[in-house]
Amino acid sequence: MTTYDDLKQQFESYKARNLKLNMERGQPADANFDLSLPILSAVDEKNYITDNGVDIRNYPGGVLGLIEAREMFCSQLNVSADELILGNNSSLELMSRILTWALLRGVCNSEKGWVNDSPKLIVTVPGYDRHFLLARELGYELLEVDMTVNGPDMDAVEELVATDASVKGIFFVPTYSNPTGDSISEKYAERLVNINAAAPDFTVFADDAYSVHHLIDNPPAVPNLLELAKKCGKADRVILFGSTSKVTFASGGLGLAGMSSNNIKYWSSALSAQTIGPNKAEQWRHVLFLRNYPGGLNGLMRDHAKILKPKFDKVQEVLNRELGNLNLASWTNPSGGYFVSLDTTDPIADRVVELAREAGLALTPTGATFPGGVDAANRNIRLAPTRPPIEEIELAMEIVACCIKLASAERA
Amino acid sequence: MTTYDDLKQQFESYKARNLKLNMERGQPADANFDLSLPILSAVDEKNYITDNGVDIRNYPGGVLGLIEAREMFCSQLNVSADELILGNNSSLELMSRILTWALLRGVCNSEKGWVNDSPKLIVTVPGYDRHFLLARELGYELLEVDMTVNGPDMDAVEELVATDASVKGIFFVPTYSNPTGDSISEKYAERLVNINAAAPDFTVFADDAYSVHHLIDNPPAVPNLLELAKKCGKADRVILFGSTSKVTFASGGLGLAGMSSNNIKYWSSALSAQTIGPNKAEQWRHVLFLRNYPGGLNGLMRDHAKILKPKFDKVQEVLNRELGNLNLASWTNPSGGYFVSLDTTDPIADRVVELAREAGLALTPTGATFPGGVDAANRNIRLAPTRPPIEEIELAMEIVACCIKLASAERA
Repeated sequence: MTTYDDLKQQFESYKARNLKLNMERGQPADANFDLSLPILSAVDEKNYITDNGVDIRNYPGGVLGLIEAREMFCSQLNVSADELILGNNSSLELMSRILTWALLRGVCNSEKGWVNDSPKLIVTVPGYDRHFLLARELGYELLEVDMTVNGPDMDAVEELVATDASVKGIFFVPTYSNPTGDSISEKYAERLVNINAAAPDFTVFADDAYSVHHLIDNPPAVPNLLELAKKCGKADRVILFGSTSKVTFASGGLGLAGMSSNNIKYWSSALSAQTIGPNKAEQWRHVLFLRNYPGGLNGLMRDHAKILKPKFDKVQEVLNRELGNLNLASWTNPSGGYFVSLDTTDPIADRVVELAREAGLALTPTGATFPGGVDAANRNIRLAPTRPPIEEIELAMEIVACCIKLASAERA
Repeated sequence: MTTYDDLKQQFESYKARNLKLNMERGQPADANFDLSLPILSAVDEKNYITDNGVDIRNYPGGVLGLIEAREMFCSQLNVSADELILGNNSSLELMSRILTWALLRGVCNSEKGWVNDSPKLIVTVPGYDRHFLLARELGYELLEVDMTVNGPDMDAVEELVATDASVKGIFFVPTYSNPTGDSISEKYAERLVNINAAAPDFTVFADDAYSVHHLIDNPPAVPNLLELAKKCGKADRVILFGSTSKVTFASGGLGLAGMSSNNIKYWSSALSAQTIGPNKAEQWRHVLFLRNYPGGLNGLMRDHAKILKPKFDKVQEVLNRELGNLNLASWTNPSGGYFVSLDTTDPIADRVVELAREAGLALTPTGATFPGGVDAANRNIRLAPTRPPIEEIELAMEIVACCIKLASAERA
């Protein structure tokens, strides 16, 4: 093992290079975006009428979105076309509409809105900062449960919902979770949708942002939350979300919400009062683009994986090489999604992020993966290897490893 | 004057023609949409980076919208670029976000959300059904005041807000109002923004949907509500809305919200929690399209007027010819906007709409211009002459006139 002085010297040599590396944000790379460039000219002066005769330039077309687009994208959430609502450019857009309306008016089977019930949502940690921000800003209290390799810690979830009717739902990422990359298991999914909740309108808000974002060929089937909920007679309990932000363009595509037929009725009515319907031009653009893409949506996702997989492999390679036997950190090795989650053994995450910044590497701020931005254990670091070029990832991960060793040594 | 039998015979002759005419919806005509067809190919594989270096394919770009688009569209609401938020595809989208957030968290200077204060909004009648539906569905109680030729009946507004702190705002169309076409006068605008309201956070929600939708050359300047509010130190009280739905494509463009710098701070923070920012591709498309359009935004609006003005003229021509001296109805003759509002002298609006339907002409359902769909006086009929071809408008208006005469005669 290297000495503290060696580490310090190595760290200073990184600093001296005036690097400007970034593994902070879960953004696609330009090479990923390039795959979808033809979408920009997919609709032109001659093809603005859909197969079903809808003129994308005028109002009529429905609040649920174009049927051709719903037929194309329903597979992304593993629902049927008539179980899908297509919104505007992000899933956050739809999640916020639904979580807001739930406060004012309730969900499908609520007697009334939740706003005066001290509403609480269960979230998984480490988790997605935008979920935490949205829910807290709307006034939900957040209850944290651990994200395990099998999904949300179901023992903890069951305990939280059993007697407290103010626990109105769970808000989490079921597949390739942000940041751990873990997916909910079939058994946990069954327990979740069939849960015995004190709140009769307890709802599973599942942000399936990475449902088709596999890194490996022939990925294992993920549990179908809506189908499982139907089987136990609780179909209305599940609302799935997704978007094309990491399929075509980030915040430049479609938001998706999948749900039961009762929910479709309820939410299309709620949306009808609040919107004039989504942008049909963007939906039609997506349809025409993917019809021409080799292999369609799946083909595009395979091409994304070809670009992303070597980057994720590089992260594992460097972490194994540099930290493999040192017991200074553990990390996930996801089969899909956008992140690798690393936990330091000592409570030094903030120090590691600070050192990395000094060395010219921006990492996700410590605590971002916890509600309120506080990681009480001070151990979690989210690594986002999707956007930087692979050469930078190698160097960035060497810096991460160096900073972990140095911060650990500082405590010795 | 024709006899009842003559009218009946004329009516039956319309029926016998099996017509299918429609003056129900305020939709642009295909000729209007055709003006904007080049927008579909304005952004292509080579120009997806904005002047300021923003890649429209990736997340970064800000919750307010692209600066180039804000600089282009701020004139539509008569505000500066830094007083404008650009949202997704409709103003309803932004209005619902803001009215919803006001309930949960309040507006810029609120102590708390309005939801438990029995919040009330003043609306003008006859008015816009989507305003009524949105506000009522969110839980606002609506208080009706008349839309006069000078804008909202300010005596009534002043009385409503003077002592009741639960009256939180007014929600109306300041320019070329739907359906009367009347605009607020400078004097009324001053009274409105400077009003002495019991609610300290009383807000003017002004849906300036037709701000640039003039039918005449050199239209008189409309009052600038935000500037007037600034002058009396109440800038935060005014929020303006608009969209490009009747500029480029209906529900296929941009939503606009204009407001003070305090409000920009407050609402961009609120939106940041709820959205990932608007679709930048659509905004950039609008910028590149209008940069190339002869005369820009104003040139496009003049070309729209060239298509629309003859239709509005035809409405006046037929109504004057058929009903001019009969005292059976009065109607507006707007200089802009999308509608003509007609009031029958007798309480027969529902019968006129029913007869017209029998004769093959769809009119806006009676009562649609009033909250809850009830026109207690049973006199108002909204005429929407923008979408049908001019030949159909002539025939449709002859049918309207015939039905008014017939329904009046039925009561004699």
